[in-house]
Amino acid sequence: MKNWMLFGITAIIVFLLAMLAYTIMDRKTEARFAYQPKVSLKGIEPRDSVWGLNYPRQYQSYQKTADTTFSSLYNTSGKKDVLADNPEMVILWAGYAFSKDYTHPRGHAYAVEDIRETLRTGAPMEAGEGPMPSTCWTCKSPDVPRLMNEVGVSEYYSKKWSDLGSEVVNPIGCADCHNPETMNLTITRPALIEAFEAMGKDVNQASHQEMRSLVCAQCHVEYYFDKSIPGKEDAQYLTFPWKDGMDVSSVEQYYDNIDFADWVHPLSKARMIKAQHPDYELYSLSVHAKRGVSCADCHMPYKSEGGQKFTDHHIGSPLSNVENSCFVCHREKQSDLVSDVYERQRKIKTGTAKLQRLIAMAHIEAAKAWELGADASDMEDILKGIRHAQWRWDYAVASHGAAFHAPLETSTIVTSATGIIQETRINLARLLADLGFTQSVEMPDFSDKIALQEYIGLDIPAEKSAKETFLDQVVPQWLKEGKAREAKMEVETVSSR
Amino acid sequence: MKNWMLFGITAIIVFLLAMLAYTIMDRKTEARFAYQPKVSLKGIEPRDSVWGLNYPRQYQSYQKTADTTFSSLYNTSGKKDVLADNPEMVILWAGYAFSKDYTHPRGHAYAVEDIRETLRTGAPMEAGEGPMPSTCWTCKSPDVPRLMNEVGVSEYYSKKWSDLGSEVVNPIGCADCHNPETMNLTITRPALIEAFEAMGKDVNQASHQEMRSLVCAQCHVEYYFDKSIPGKEDAQYLTFPWKDGMDVSSVEQYYDNIDFADWVHPLSKARMIKAQHPDYELYSLSVHAKRGVSCADCHMPYKSEGGQKFTDHHIGSPLSNVENSCFVCHREKQSDLVSDVYERQRKIKTGTAKLQRLIAMAHIEAAKAWELGADASDMEDILKGIRHAQWRWDYAVASHGAAFHAPLETSTIVTSATGIIQETRINLARLLADLGFTQSVEMPDFSDKIALQEYIGLDIPAEKSAKETFLDQVVPQWLKEGKAREAKMEVETVSSR
Repeated sequence: MKNWMLFGITAIIVFLLAMLAYTIMDRKTEARFAYQPKVSLKGIEPRDSVWGLNYPRQYQSYQKTADTTFSSLYNTSGKKDVLADNPEMVILWAGYAFSKDYTHPRGHAYAVEDIRETLRTGAPMEAGEGPMPSTCWTCKSPDVPRLMNEVGVSEYYSKKWSDLGSEVVNPIGCADCHNPETMNLTITRPALIEAFEAMGKDVNQASHQEMRSLVCAQCHVEYYFDKSIPGKEDAQYLTFPWKDGMDVSSVEQYYDNIDFADWVHPLSKARMIKAQHPDYELYSLSVHAKRGVSCADCHMPYKSEGGQKFTDHHIGSPLSNVENSCFVCHREKQSDLVSDVYERQRKIKTGTAKLQRLIAMAHIEAAKAWELGADASDMEDILKGIRHAQWRWDYAVASHGAAFHAPLETSTIVTSATGIIQETRINLARLLADLGFTQSVEMPDFSDKIALQEYIGLDIPAEKSAKETFLDQVVPQWLKEGKAREAKMEVETVSSR
Repeated sequence: MKNWMLFGITAIIVFLLAMLAYTIMDRKTEARFAYQPKVSLKGIEPRDSVWGLNYPRQYQSYQKTADTTFSSLYNTSGKKDVLADNPEMVILWAGYAFSKDYTHPRGHAYAVEDIRETLRTGAPMEAGEGPMPSTCWTCKSPDVPRLMNEVGVSEYYSKKWSDLGSEVVNPIGCADCHNPETMNLTITRPALIEAFEAMGKDVNQASHQEMRSLVCAQCHVEYYFDKSIPGKEDAQYLTFPWKDGMDVSSVEQYYDNIDFADWVHPLSKARMIKAQHPDYELYSLSVHAKRGVSCADCHMPYKSEGGQKFTDHHIGSPLSNVENSCFVCHREKQSDLVSDVYERQRKIKTGTAKLQRLIAMAHIEAAKAWELGADASDMEDILKGIRHAQWRWDYAVASHGAAFHAPLETSTIVTSATGIIQETRINLARLLADLGFTQSVEMPDFSDKIALQEYIGLDIPAEKSAKETFLDQVVPQWLKEGKAREAKMEVETVSSR
């Protein structure tokens, strides 16, 4: 009888323990706080602050992309001048806006602010003015899919950058990557969808894990503006040159086939290609990609707060968050992992630093050849060499994290570009000799950004002064109009369950 | 009472089970077979077959280094001609024995056979004849430490290769790395000990794990023959150039400081350095080294046979044994791991293949400059450029497994060498123009090894014929004398325990 009582009591205790264990594991209470919608999200809502009412953790972590203190790259004013560190880039980009102003990229939170402030976008005092097309806004804001939805894609691509200053006011945010009703990852930019179509693929068939990279690939890629689409001749149509492959040689071949040039270099007269940031392309060739690791796995690792696991939206360098990103797979000392990355960067940088100097010299040697009477047929192979070498150099340098994502691929690109530019300079030396000039061509001081900007005929003080006027007079007006427009946008609240 | 019986029986069964478990885990029976010495090993015993009596598993697995079927590199005759695949190497090594004959390395078992057969060692019909010093035997056989012990180190380095043909008959084996009495790993070659001393280190302080790489580093390194050691002027003293660092730049600087040259190139007249196989040096810069992985961990992984765990002495490519080498740390598909390696090799190979062509062209362009009347001061920087570029190319190419061990380091070496040789060719183009020659210099057919060997003045049929006579008449005599000498060496048997 006593035994039966003992048995009964034990059974009851075990039952209660199981109930307790379940409540701990179930986290029902936390779950209630985890997703409690306050507003109903519909259509393309460009304001993160509205999304943040429903998803406060993701929103608050995303706001941290405004924090740049993690990196020594940023000085007190928040920006770091790439041209001052690499003055020969002024020569490489002579005739192209990057020779005026190029700062290290900052967080997503600065996307709209930085494009307004850079000298590259000029100082358009009126709508319809200025050097840049509306296409330049495409990667900067969730106002872009909203606008595309409202006016049509080709129509969106057919304006000037200055036409949309009061429309594009929210930096990159929630609506760029998420479906507001299901919160599923979604592709909002036509260029990626069209690039997949050109490759004979359907981006809608991508798995969730693939989408964790593809939403980034909407912008973190090489692209160009196609001005020759039949029936859309007014548009500067954003296009990814992936039809024949995403590697540096295939894209080079693609551009050569359509004789595309971003600009013609005023010194060498070479038809140049500016590489944008082929991040997804080089990542795709990485060991991490091969092992199925997505962009978000390292740049947006999972995080726990108050018992809730969520994706950390503080997108940035994994080096500032090694514990949550690298440590998921790698069991090494943090300092070892970090120094591995810096070592890769240092090795690639040694090669690209030398290479950019050689390309700058080639531009100036080519200018000398023209000056001494070279003709177009003499210069044909030389200009092609300059075009290809600078394209390859830029592909390696412009890609964020290339040296880490795919170090060997990046290094072999640098090797090939070094071979090409030096072969070109050998041909230049022979041509110059034929034209009676056997010395070294006189070079400007490659260590002085300001002197080099003068050398290529830029008036930076005038550019800066115009920009200041623009920032003082035009931008506040854009912001005011934008605010007034958004004030009329309705937000539907959800009654508490 | 019944309960007590049940308890007693249970206790007895558990006791017996524990005994059984212990005997299984203890492997006492297997241990008895594992090490049962048959002979007493003393002094430097160069014959693996004698060691094999005590250590049959290690011996039998080591014998498999004679098997080359794992690699497509080896054709039916067992050797693969590197020069036929890369004919421009004939130009790079003009004036140096490697331009005559260079085959892919085979297993340790072939060390002595291959050095006798290569055209590089010539056809010395008498002792004291031939092109090579005795130092060339140093890495080929455990007869070398035996000889050093018998005649003295400097004395050993002071002979001709042909003097020791009957002495060095056993290919690389047990006594090269093991202490016969303790079986501990041991350094038998003075060069490594002296190189550590030059760096201010003591190789005797190395841990067992470090020794698992250092025994390999006795031979798998860059080295040169020092002919200027005070008091040892007769010797060609084997020396590792590590005093100022082991990386490619430090060693280049070391050789420049002592104005060392392996030979003077007959075309360009550059003072050349031949890189040997800086395997340990490049491995030291690898991620694997950084993580504490030794040579033996991948090239000699543990193996189990008959319940006994032992180090597999079938030294070779880990690619033929991924399961036991890579899988210890890496949980990936075998095909993925293997294709990762091939991809690295392919990328490096693309760069080195282009680079070797450029260096060959530079030698021929330099010859043209001399022919047109260039003087030594015109050529100084050019010859230095050729020397450095070829040294760096060779360092990347000669190191076994460089493309896998340290892909990025190797690639940056290729980038730097490409920059140097092309800068040199620009200077050559300017100099040639100054000398009145502005065309491309005429090049031989770089795809034809035999034609290139004729171009540099080699008479390969004569070399081959002399080698055949040597192999027919001299080598059998060496073998006969060696056998007679070894027949007198005593082996002391151990009575069974």
